[in-house]
Amino acid sequence: MGEYVFRGRLIAVRVDETERGPREVVEHPGAVAILAVNERGEVLLVRQYRHGAGRSLWEIPAGTLEPGESPLRCAQRELWEETGLRARRWRKLGTFYTSPGFLNELMHLFLAEELEGEPGPQTEDEVAEISFRRPEEILRAVGSGEVGDGKTLAALAFALANPEDDGPYLPLR
Amino acid sequence: MGEYVFRGRLIAVRVDETERGPREVVEHPGAVAILAVNERGEVLLVRQYRHGAGRSLWEIPAGTLEPGESPLRCAQRELWEETGLRARRWRKLGTFYTSPGFLNELMHLFLAEELEGEPGPQTEDEVAEISFRRPEEILRAVGSGEVGDGKTLAALAFALANPEDDGPYLPLR
Repeated sequence: MGEYVFRGRLIAVRVDETERGPREVVEHPGAVAILAVNERGEVLLVRQYRHGAGRSLWEIPAGTLEPGESPLRCAQRELWEETGLRARRWRKLGTFYTSPGFLNELMHLFLAEELEGEPGPQTEDEVAEISFRRPEEILRAVGSGEVGDGKTLAALAFALANPEDDGPYLPLR
Repeated sequence: MGEYVFRGRLIAVRVDETERGPREVVEHPGAVAILAVNERGEVLLVRQYRHGAGRSLWEIPAGTLEPGESPLRCAQRELWEETGLRARRWRKLGTFYTSPGFLNELMHLFLAEELEGEPGPQTEDEVAEISFRRPEEILRAVGSGEVGDGKTLAALAFALANPEDDGPYLPLR
């Protein structure tokens, strides 16, 4: 472990000395993302201004882990705060690094089904719009030049091919 | 734009003052990832130690843009350096942010087909293993608890559902 060059509210940055020279590492508390699917097989998206990207993006609901918070509780909290919805059925789909070359951020991905409530942001004033979209539509937009969001695309991979082998979560139409 | 608190070789970090308080932003030069597919519909993966994650991961080949380098040239260079392979057919699949809340890293994703050459790392001594895997196998491993890589999962979404609507790039078996 090298020297810390920055310690902020969200991230810390250190520079490690390695055999291949100094390597910059960003430390992050970890995050969750929620693939929330309605009875028509459509995916819940929120549009919000993203400060890192410097622009608004359509993404699945997501958020940063608070100290001591389990990924599932964080996912349930973020879904409600960003969209006003709750889900009766939760399943863990997987865990992945968002950019493992220099960042330790781990993303915990959940499938949320049997949604209840009235869509509308509760406490997150950054969420500007909420929409349900077919997975093919989201991929087509990114394939046509619209800039996408990595975790949303990663979640679609699970949606399009159920790794449990009992048919896809969201069959292609 | 706020004040820079760190300027490194790869990244820079600034803190912006916003209506919602100070926000930390990591600036990154951008990157490419390559979904290289063989004639059997299998995806090329490399296993390497990832300094940010602090562990080894199986991922599609990827790398950081050099100054002035186009994403396609970068993708062609990285595929050859990491795997010893070249591709006769290249297509852009899409562009996405890896973690847009605090990071401006943009990932350019390419499909590489009609592969040529003998697999084996050329100049990247970090690559330890090279393998071709079925997309379902990769998803099943991540769904079973193995920690995955976000860009690899994002690439699989394109592989499993060709957004151009002329059938999937990689049909599920």
